[in-house]
Amino acid sequence: MKKIMLLATAALQLTIACAQEKTIAERLGYPKNTKLLILHADDLGVSHSENEASINIMEKGCVNSASIMVPCPWFTEIAAYAREHPGKDFGLHITLTSEWTNYKWGPVTSSQVVPTLINKQGYLYASVDSVLQFASAAQVEVEIRNQVKRAIQFGIDPTHLDTHMGTVARKLDFLKAYIKVGREFKIPVFVPRQIESGLNIRLDTLMSKGEVVVESLVTILPQQMQSNAVDFYTNALRNLPSGLTYFIIHTAYDTEEMKAVTKGFVDWGSAWRQTDYNFFSSPQCAKLLKENNIQLVTWREIRDKLYR
Amino acid sequence: MKKIMLLATAALQLTIACAQEKTIAERLGYPKNTKLLILHADDLGVSHSENEASINIMEKGCVNSASIMVPCPWFTEIAAYAREHPGKDFGLHITLTSEWTNYKWGPVTSSQVVPTLINKQGYLYASVDSVLQFASAAQVEVEIRNQVKRAIQFGIDPTHLDTHMGTVARKLDFLKAYIKVGREFKIPVFVPRQIESGLNIRLDTLMSKGEVVVESLVTILPQQMQSNAVDFYTNALRNLPSGLTYFIIHTAYDTEEMKAVTKGFVDWGSAWRQTDYNFFSSPQCAKLLKENNIQLVTWREIRDKLYR
Repeated sequence: MKKIMLLATAALQLTIACAQEKTIAERLGYPKNTKLLILHADDLGVSHSENEASINIMEKGCVNSASIMVPCPWFTEIAAYAREHPGKDFGLHITLTSEWTNYKWGPVTSSQVVPTLINKQGYLYASVDSVLQFASAAQVEVEIRNQVKRAIQFGIDPTHLDTHMGTVARKLDFLKAYIKVGREFKIPVFVPRQIESGLNIRLDTLMSKGEVVVESLVTILPQQMQSNAVDFYTNALRNLPSGLTYFIIHTAYDTEEMKAVTKGFVDWGSAWRQTDYNFFSSPQCAKLLKENNIQLVTWREIRDKLYR
Repeated sequence: MKKIMLLATAALQLTIACAQEKTIAERLGYPKNTKLLILHADDLGVSHSENEASINIMEKGCVNSASIMVPCPWFTEIAAYAREHPGKDFGLHITLTSEWTNYKWGPVTSSQVVPTLINKQGYLYASVDSVLQFASAAQVEVEIRNQVKRAIQFGIDPTHLDTHMGTVARKLDFLKAYIKVGREFKIPVFVPRQIESGLNIRLDTLMSKGEVVVESLVTILPQQMQSNAVDFYTNALRNLPSGLTYFIIHTAYDTEEMKAVTKGFVDWGSAWRQTDYNFFSSPQCAKLLKENNIQLVTWREIRDKLYR
């Protein structure tokens, strides 16, 4: 019995050692220097327009992964789609804010249980700063867990967690709660390397060696969107490094609904999302992926090969 | 002092006696047999499309009164409009159901306080029957009161209460709670005479003599909508009785958003609401009101003349 235990321990140590040495590409079964890309649409569930555009681009365009906002009004629509398309790569866009002016939502947890997450009107705070100032980490943890439970209750098989407006990546205690809940459900959580400088921490103190850190993150900023989105994305795809890169985009149709949702906002607004949709549904995008030998990978692949 | 009290009592008795004898038209300051009409749009706040169409028809069409669904996602949009247009006649469409398939909402009260109002998913029940079966009248009262408080918190000056899908009119205890909350805020509540047969009650046991009962209610039914809505409404306006008549209509634009909200439903669906919009924004409707000597009245007029 003791011998078996020793052998098992040795095997575990060997696995860990290999995990340390192998690149993420190798760990997933690709050649060492493969350029891996998750082309990820955020904010599904926020509106009908966002759902329709994102479903369309996942079926016909380049986007291969997306995440769902569980507290939002159109959650049930995208949940129904996810249930009916179990092969698609849907994670949960952990949502602690309700940022638009005329269109709001609250937490999924009873407001009496998470009073520090809501404003006087009973909605989630509009700004990340307010969440950072007022929300207790314990209540953040409860809400994250309940968003995951609710998604599972609706028949979604979440492949990953990520964070709406980066809120959980702005405070160490929130980040710990997020990582903890991910582990409870054996779901990878999106954690980009750049958090280290933002929070002044080292991720190896929080994440185990087997857990994936996103080394390269690409997301367009307002200035780049205003000048030339196509150039920005084209250059990013042409210069993709080896290892795992993560694109965060937002796809919606520029409809009356979406204009009204994002009223008063240009950045991440309705036209912005149509621009993202246009590029990532274009033949040009597919061509760039092919020409630059980019290997799309999903969170499902990462989850099922490395976390389960 | 005693004399003044006696005089006051006599005056009160006289007022009550007059209220008994006078028609609703006279009580509001119109000739005895005036045909009074409230042309009322329900369901504001349910969607952006419903808000836009209803605002437009209240500004340019025949609709002169409307009610707002406080728990719905687009409540804040219509609340902002109501705040900015304090002269418009907005009441509250007390909402105890969340009836669409892919687009949902919960109560405004913390779910821990009103557990009998919500289904396993945390939303209000989809059907009126489930509300009747499971909801406690005490919790219904709490939720009605909180919807009113919330509207006032958002700067709405509610001119009346009415009932989404007629839910509160289907059970005596719910009806009592609804009337009670209306009185607390000195707001008239929409109660049609036909409730008497539905609930097998006499309204004079519930309502005081000074409170208004809607004697004549017009709302189009599926068969009439399918055959000829214009004929139905034209006839209803041509044959309007004297006294107070109440039209319940639903105005929205038949957009992608509204089609998705009402997906799977024809009755009270997206095209239905566009049909209502088309008729009540038409010059034909305005002409019929004029030709038939119909006097539009608002709930505000009723509230301020008879309840305050």
